[in-house]
Amino acid sequence: MDRGPGGPIGVAVEVLGDRWMLLILRDVIFGDRRHFRALLTGSSEGIASNILADRLVRLVEAGLLSRGTAARGQRARYSLTEAGIRTLPILYALGHWANAGQPTHASAAPHDFAPAPDPALIEQHMDDLRARHLGNAAFPEGDPTAG
Amino acid sequence: MDRGPGGPIGVAVEVLGDRWMLLILRDVIFGDRRHFRALLTGSSEGIASNILADRLVRLVEAGLLSRGTAARGQRARYSLTEAGIRTLPILYALGHWANAGQPTHASAAPHDFAPAPDPALIEQHMDDLRARHLGNAAFPEGDPTAG
Repeated sequence: MDRGPGGPIGVAVEVLGDRWMLLILRDVIFGDRRHFRALLTGSSEGIASNILADRLVRLVEAGLLSRGTAARGQRARYSLTEAGIRTLPILYALGHWANAGQPTHASAAPHDFAPAPDPALIEQHMDDLRARHLGNAAFPEGDPTAG
Repeated sequence: MDRGPGGPIGVAVEVLGDRWMLLILRDVIFGDRRHFRALLTGSSEGIASNILADRLVRLVEAGLLSRGTAARGQRARYSLTEAGIRTLPILYALGHWANAGQPTHASAAPHDFAPAPDPALIEQHMDDLRARHLGNAAFPEGDPTAG
């Protein structure tokens, strides 16, 4: 499955090797921000609206987010796709790396760092995201039994 | 350990949310390219020399690589630091994500994808990298018993 001369890591980096792509995914996943306005105003990094708009288009084109059809004046809501949900281990690995860079004592040996995130917990979190983001494409907003 | 408003993921993305930083780490780790020239000519993505030079400085400043002292006309060799070695789970997660996006049959359900990389194998790979990259700062090139 080594597609392209850069291998699978090269393929992934082509999409995800961008600060804003990763930060938007973080905010959708961990902040449950699913509308443009929430992503804009809630951004810890102060993302600019044109950058946000550009990256949302790219995330949809890359198949990581889907954009719900806005109905009756409602704003479009973004949902994670399965491929978007599957970026979760990457985000956990990034967060763990940042935490692990700060061992609790100065003479830390390699194995003194915090243990890696439990794969079972990540899998559970992915299942939670599937329940909240997938299978509701026909009902992008609100109660799926309504209407 | 939630340093900064963007949390640990924000901290990590500040350093690693860049295509070339990730690709250089990939080439050092998986391609064992440890000199400027090898990283330049072996790059699948055709990195430009000024970009490579810039990112190597940033990787050293961020504490992910160390630059060996070049002796007797030898070229400087780069070594991974412990923090650099600990990016390995991120690179594995990126590669797995790209592979997992291509299930072997079209009607794949979430759990039909390849299993995640074995954490024990990643740990083993990190230990291999420690043996090859750490603890030889006084002997950046060749036989540590020489000289």
